[in-house]
Amino acid sequence: MEQKEELGMAAKKSGDFNEWYNQVVLKADMIDYSLVSGCVILKPNSYSIWEKIQRIFDDKIKRSGHKNCYFPMFIPESLLKREAEHFEGFTPEVAWVTKGGNSELSEKLAIRPTSETVMMESYAKWIRSWRDLPLLLNQWNSVVRWEFKHAKPFLRTREFLWQEGHTAHATKEEAEKEVMQQLFEYVDLIENYMAIPVIAGKKTEKEKFAGADYTTTVEAFMPDGKALQMGTSHMLGQNFSKPFGIKFLDKDEKEKHVWTTSWGLSTRTIGAIVMTHGDDKGLVLAPVQIAIVPIVFKDNKDAIISKAKEIAKKLRAHNFSVELDDRDGYTPGWKFNEWELKGVPLRLEIGPKDVAAEQVIAVRRDTNEKVTVKIKELEKKAEELLNDIQEDLFKKAKEYLTKNITEAKSFDEFLKAVKDRKMPKSLFCGESECEDSIKDKSEGATCRCIPFEQKPAHGKCVQCGKDAKFWAVFGKGY
Amino acid sequence: MEQKEELGMAAKKSGDFNEWYNQVVLKADMIDYSLVSGCVILKPNSYSIWEKIQRIFDDKIKRSGHKNCYFPMFIPESLLKREAEHFEGFTPEVAWVTKGGNSELSEKLAIRPTSETVMMESYAKWIRSWRDLPLLLNQWNSVVRWEFKHAKPFLRTREFLWQEGHTAHATKEEAEKEVMQQLFEYVDLIENYMAIPVIAGKKTEKEKFAGADYTTTVEAFMPDGKALQMGTSHMLGQNFSKPFGIKFLDKDEKEKHVWTTSWGLSTRTIGAIVMTHGDDKGLVLAPVQIAIVPIVFKDNKDAIISKAKEIAKKLRAHNFSVELDDRDGYTPGWKFNEWELKGVPLRLEIGPKDVAAEQVIAVRRDTNEKVTVKIKELEKKAEELLNDIQEDLFKKAKEYLTKNITEAKSFDEFLKAVKDRKMPKSLFCGESECEDSIKDKSEGATCRCIPFEQKPAHGKCVQCGKDAKFWAVFGKGY
Repeated sequence: MEQKEELGMAAKKSGDFNEWYNQVVLKADMIDYSLVSGCVILKPNSYSIWEKIQRIFDDKIKRSGHKNCYFPMFIPESLLKREAEHFEGFTPEVAWVTKGGNSELSEKLAIRPTSETVMMESYAKWIRSWRDLPLLLNQWNSVVRWEFKHAKPFLRTREFLWQEGHTAHATKEEAEKEVMQQLFEYVDLIENYMAIPVIAGKKTEKEKFAGADYTTTVEAFMPDGKALQMGTSHMLGQNFSKPFGIKFLDKDEKEKHVWTTSWGLSTRTIGAIVMTHGDDKGLVLAPVQIAIVPIVFKDNKDAIISKAKEIAKKLRAHNFSVELDDRDGYTPGWKFNEWELKGVPLRLEIGPKDVAAEQVIAVRRDTNEKVTVKIKELEKKAEELLNDIQEDLFKKAKEYLTKNITEAKSFDEFLKAVKDRKMPKSLFCGESECEDSIKDKSEGATCRCIPFEQKPAHGKCVQCGKDAKFWAVFGKGY
Repeated sequence: MEQKEELGMAAKKSGDFNEWYNQVVLKADMIDYSLVSGCVILKPNSYSIWEKIQRIFDDKIKRSGHKNCYFPMFIPESLLKREAEHFEGFTPEVAWVTKGGNSELSEKLAIRPTSETVMMESYAKWIRSWRDLPLLLNQWNSVVRWEFKHAKPFLRTREFLWQEGHTAHATKEEAEKEVMQQLFEYVDLIENYMAIPVIAGKKTEKEKFAGADYTTTVEAFMPDGKALQMGTSHMLGQNFSKPFGIKFLDKDEKEKHVWTTSWGLSTRTIGAIVMTHGDDKGLVLAPVQIAIVPIVFKDNKDAIISKAKEIAKKLRAHNFSVELDDRDGYTPGWKFNEWELKGVPLRLEIGPKDVAAEQVIAVRRDTNEKVTVKIKELEKKAEELLNDIQEDLFKKAKEYLTKNITEAKSFDEFLKAVKDRKMPKSLFCGESECEDSIKDKSEGATCRCIPFEQKPAHGKCVQCGKDAKFWAVFGKGY
């Protein structure tokens, strides 16, 4: 057998976490590195997760009247400059096109790090009257941010895939409602489909998006003690509509500037799925829901394979996503390992005894629990088991998150929490200078968010001792 | 009413065709121009066509075992150079990234004009054994070709969207089978969904893809007398597997180079839909199938709108794509024009008399034919009418195509056909030099394809008089 490559995991999640992560994403065949430093290839095992995310989220935004479009990837430098803060925020990591064929371009072109500027330039042309509002557009595309830190698959790569929604509204209230609506669509997507619990809240002034009035965010907590920003929704106020001249004639015959929002969620969420649910055997939670492994012997191969095919067909007819692994030349044990590594939540084993008894053995990826299921009850039972897995994964992650948010009343407690790789939750003044000091003294902890769920913030800021404005959650980020 | 903008078409298809085309794509709200010269914005009215194409074709390729992935958009110059012909073919129109942030890159990066090189570099790492074959990957992405000719929406823009399939096979036969299978998936997509008849065949040596053994193509014929390449499928032989070292250990324990294919279809097909079916009122054939326009008067508005909503719901439940146009402040006539301009194939009008009689008036976009339909028969009748429209559009386009392919026996006849904006079909030697002469003498006609459907090619080449190899179709292209 030529199957003996080093396929299995050789690192432990509780050991060298970074090494474990790198092994999972490579060995579960999710990504590969490319010759371009800082970029990775999304192989079908990870791209299919993205396709599933796309399908779920796209249905959501279309139900609320959003439409998809596609804007060019190029942004002339002068256009990128039009909103000053935005330009300053993004320029240090822009990839610049300076040549077309053999000709030098007269103006260099940014590859979009995000599309506010190019889209707002068009919105100014398209929006004339209150009848044109709200304008609710989204695009699924790739963006480029030329980071100089070491790349980490899904979490930090120079090119990544995302969706970016950009909306324009007649009133501030409508725009604010949109910001929150989309943020909570992210919460639903991440908690109920990815089974990852999050904290929803606002970013501080220091951490907000370059050009926003304020930024709302959903933050998750990873097993290595770092916080991960899963999606953000920005209230852009009139910060873009004014420099871009996006005006409309309102019902009262007055000309007004529109209010805009933008919101994005990227392939980094795939990294969060890997880190949150993965274990020492590899990925847990893949888009393929069920792997069927026939246990064949020479004299009964045909009967077993034929029964396995029948089961696969039956399950597919009920909309389960199923892989039937009838490859020759691999042992069942080898196949089990592979499907475990790839994170298929439910494995069905079927051998000669099972065929005779009209049953299969169902094995849960998360707990390794085995149950015998009668074939006639399979759809119902598979549905139950998959739901149980999803719920249990979420529950486990939720307990972990709760356990790791520590209320820190003094700055010593705060620093200890950071050192223990937890997230301190403290009273905070909200000042950028104070936040700088915190980052300095804690060797890197930043304010992850000001949660929407607040207790009364009576007291002093944990670091500077000034009056606190709110409770905030801190932590080291990716 | 503020509705009196110059919305309607002011050019005729039979008049200035280019002006007509530009008006349709702008006024039907399909595209807009951007500040980046040569690039256009795909607005929801055209992007939704692309989404529909994606859904149909993606289902097709997944059924035949292909999987989607995503490769970085950047290709280092040295990698692009690895297949010489390919490099020469694409370099004159490559957009080059030379700076990241403020740093000059040590090697300039091409934005992919196509992904053969970056993908084959990985295939060399991924493919080891016959067990890894066939490898059937596809990606949906944007590509950049920095053309210096004037841009034409959908047909020639510096950035465009497409899918590119890249497959590797153990044998030449399998690869050739794949080339043809995908080409005929394009034929099905284009003829049966876009209602555009095509000629399927091979490209000549001169016109084939840079780096291919041969290229197969589907060609359509546009109303301005130009041929349009709708999709191509390339047999790459071992031209990439050799320079890239893509080898596998076969069942016979021998190491062999794989055989590769690639195939692509782009947003230019949207331009073909506009040109083929559009008329003096605008676009014909949009992804929205049915527009419902309530004819309301002050005293019965509620009853009519409520019935219209009921009908919309009923049709949507049967999977029709429906827009209910209940906007205030626009006359029915204005709405009719707008939905005609946007190409919705079926319009349903419902007024007070119709509500009373439990009926609607159905109007075909292509013929303007009106029929009264009982609401209880609406789903069935709408299905029939939409099918009729689709069939009639195809039939009309097919007759037009057939009429415009002229068998030219002498070179005079050939030149006359080109001058008359038809496509001459002639005996041809297949030599690149002869093809150059033809292009020269005809002021631009090139060989569009050597159709798979061939009569015996007994005789002499229409231009040079040498022995003919086959019948070929010529024409001016975009």
